[in-house]
Amino acid sequence: MKSGKLITFEGIDGSGKSTQILMLAEKLIAAGNEVIVTREPGGSPGAEEIRNMVLKGDKGRWSTETELLLFTAARRDHLERVIEPAIAAGRHVLSDRYVDSTRVYQGVGRGELRRKVDILHTQMIGREADLTFVIDIEPEVGLDRAVARTGDEKRFESFGLELQDRLRRGFLDLARECSERVVLVDGNRPKDKVAADIHNVIKEMPL
Amino acid sequence: MKSGKLITFEGIDGSGKSTQILMLAEKLIAAGNEVIVTREPGGSPGAEEIRNMVLKGDKGRWSTETELLLFTAARRDHLERVIEPAIAAGRHVLSDRYVDSTRVYQGVGRGELRRKVDILHTQMIGREADLTFVIDIEPEVGLDRAVARTGDEKRFESFGLELQDRLRRGFLDLARECSERVVLVDGNRPKDKVAADIHNVIKEMPL
Repeated sequence: MKSGKLITFEGIDGSGKSTQILMLAEKLIAAGNEVIVTREPGGSPGAEEIRNMVLKGDKGRWSTETELLLFTAARRDHLERVIEPAIAAGRHVLSDRYVDSTRVYQGVGRGELRRKVDILHTQMIGREADLTFVIDIEPEVGLDRAVARTGDEKRFESFGLELQDRLRRGFLDLARECSERVVLVDGNRPKDKVAADIHNVIKEMPL
Repeated sequence: MKSGKLITFEGIDGSGKSTQILMLAEKLIAAGNEVIVTREPGGSPGAEEIRNMVLKGDKGRWSTETELLLFTAARRDHLERVIEPAIAAGRHVLSDRYVDSTRVYQGVGRGELRRKVDILHTQMIGREADLTFVIDIEPEVGLDRAVARTGDEKRFESFGLELQDRLRRGFLDLARECSERVVLVDGNRPKDKVAADIHNVIKEMPL
């Protein structure tokens, strides 16, 4: 049986990742593929439990280093319980965030910690995405969309424009560094146009 | 101000670590030292929360790799919130288990994982104990003591004699490997004799 692919979606909050994942999943399923839609942090019962523990606390409750370890633990569980079995069964996995989010959120502006993200990933996770879409938007657009959404998890959104801008630049740098795997998509446009770009890339990929 | 020391106690369950820690703490306090008594996994509110999450599940709920990451996250929190501040304030920290337990419990019989424990420790923790007592007992003695204790956390005890014996040998190997820091104590004797041995070592140490 042919292995499935791991396709990840990255970008700042409000970039439209989850909408694009659902639109792509529909197209892939319509074309006869089996597809798993998942997200990080979380994606498996254990990883969701870790996610809740990390996100429910006050800001500053966990240091960035402890968060990095907890998110890597969650990813390991997600990988073992959901991603690897799906890929082995020939299903494509579409994930809303994966290790690139850890590289950017925990590593941005902190070169030493960014290196540790990579060491932990190599040692404890090992699997890189086959294809990654970074959906790039103006932080103002993302913040408006994020604030418009309901839900409690305002943690990452709550740091304001200056941080969103730094994170955006982190994702742009990453897209340049890992251009063999990362495709940058302009997310400041209507969702159908963004989806068409993504689909064009997927059509070129041997699935 | 003189820094405090990190003194850790290791060994299989039922080896008498907590009794010996309390006996040593009394002597150190009587001699005018400030002392913190703590334990792992746990020892800080965040680390205790991680401990509860790991220990409450069924066996097999988390893989050994995920456990390793979770225990390292707990240790990082414990280090930042309790151990480092105490040492900086000149207090001695006596810990019931530390990284050597991870080396043995997660690493025993699995060379590759044992190497990962060390890599994670170097990258994310960095502090080795100043002095470690491995209290060695016959597994039969430990199991009898552990079963006699009340409490829910039978998780590590529940694997039986064969595992306890492998873990014991793991601690003995570690004591040989790290002989510059680890003191092996025969725990199959009355607790006062064990305590006297430990106190003799401490008296030689520049505290």
